[in-house]
Amino acid sequence: MDRLAALIRPDTTLVSIMAVNNEIGSIQPIQAISELLADKPAISFHVDAVQAAAKIPRADYLTERVDFATFSSHKFHGLRGVGFVYIKAGKKITPLLTGGGQESDKRSTTENLAGIAATAKALRLSMENQEAFASRTAKMKAVILEELAAYPDVTVFSGRENFAPHILTFGIRGVRGEVVVHAFEDYEIYISTTSACSSKAGKPAGTLIAMGVEKSLAQTAVRVSLDADNDMGQMEQFLTTFKIIYEKTRKVR
Amino acid sequence: MDRLAALIRPDTTLVSIMAVNNEIGSIQPIQAISELLADKPAISFHVDAVQAAAKIPRADYLTERVDFATFSSHKFHGLRGVGFVYIKAGKKITPLLTGGGQESDKRSTTENLAGIAATAKALRLSMENQEAFASRTAKMKAVILEELAAYPDVTVFSGRENFAPHILTFGIRGVRGEVVVHAFEDYEIYISTTSACSSKAGKPAGTLIAMGVEKSLAQTAVRVSLDADNDMGQMEQFLTTFKIIYEKTRKVR
Repeated sequence: MDRLAALIRPDTTLVSIMAVNNEIGSIQPIQAISELLADKPAISFHVDAVQAAAKIPRADYLTERVDFATFSSHKFHGLRGVGFVYIKAGKKITPLLTGGGQESDKRSTTENLAGIAATAKALRLSMENQEAFASRTAKMKAVILEELAAYPDVTVFSGRENFAPHILTFGIRGVRGEVVVHAFEDYEIYISTTSACSSKAGKPAGTLIAMGVEKSLAQTAVRVSLDADNDMGQMEQFLTTFKIIYEKTRKVR
Repeated sequence: MDRLAALIRPDTTLVSIMAVNNEIGSIQPIQAISELLADKPAISFHVDAVQAAAKIPRADYLTERVDFATFSSHKFHGLRGVGFVYIKAGKKITPLLTGGGQESDKRSTTENLAGIAATAKALRLSMENQEAFASRTAKMKAVILEELAAYPDVTVFSGRENFAPHILTFGIRGVRGEVVVHAFEDYEIYISTTSACSSKAGKPAGTLIAMGVEKSLAQTAVRVSLDADNDMGQMEQFLTTFKIIYEKTRKVR
């Protein structure tokens, strides 16, 4: 918060914050930032709520002060390739896609009707389920966190307080993340390295690097994303498999 | 063709042509333009094939000389909100949507997977059906064209030769297009004014205006789009209804 406050200059026009970090699940203090910006009406406040919607309480990413918030449907069981933006009444945007000027000049394309309908329904259902989602995934995350603490060569990057309930990022020291991901794949357990975009580029988690984590350690990071559909039996399966993989990678450590 | 040839300058970098005009269905001579550009490799040739794909033979909109061609899925029974672009091997594009750099830096978004799958299937099926589509819709269009010729106050803007088989644009002199569209709606027959984008803006057909059609006449234009699913019974129904509407609007003419 102090760092952010110091960065704001008289000519700052936009503050854009990711509510829940996609790589490690940390939650940014949108409420506190809203208070910081309360007496700065010239600054537009954008929240990237992609990883937050239906995962944490709405008040934690969408305050009265937020001018714009962006969402991605497939993060709450909508269709892939669909997103939407919240625009506070009276606020304007410049369209990325121009053309015929349809849709009030916000996005000049033929609407993805099926995607919009699916998004509306998926959002309603998952918003209604947010508390159950949070409590269920937090319990499963806790089980894994407790167990991982017993492994000396494991670094955990995701905490519990001020972290999303469903994201758990960790690494086995000396073992690159993709090696761990592929090892789990052999057991039909699908986790990921950091994010879809950076993993394709083969880069280590940008968030961890920005946090000052040493590159060789950041490269070990893998991310477990939990859903309300997961169950405790799967957590046990995950941990049994993790033990095997941990042993197998002993020689490279 | 002469007009186009005259417009090309030494510093021209792009020729962009709509293969089938969306408002009146006219077909542009992509083959002839390809020959015109044959000895001009520095010029990129883009074809907007949105209204052409699966409606007219592929050779009429996608020649060897075409560098880029754009398509829209809902025009061939794919899902709305999905499109794709043909890019000739070795040609590069600058993405409209930047971000993580996924998809080879062509479009940094999470793929619309359902839309892509539906597009592939719909395209294959409709391409296989192109000849049947053309012959079926051309017959229905001919029936309407012949009948409309009997009405003195009707102007037909779509011909047969060098016009798409399924698009028929006409107007009742002195009657605004939207009046005709709404009159047909009362009989559950759905036609449109010119294009979705310009109709929302309440503007008359840009194509007709560009062709030198007088504004008051251009404003009468309505477009009938035929599909292989339509049948002759519907054409009769359309013509019976048209007669009623034509009589009803007699007093404003």
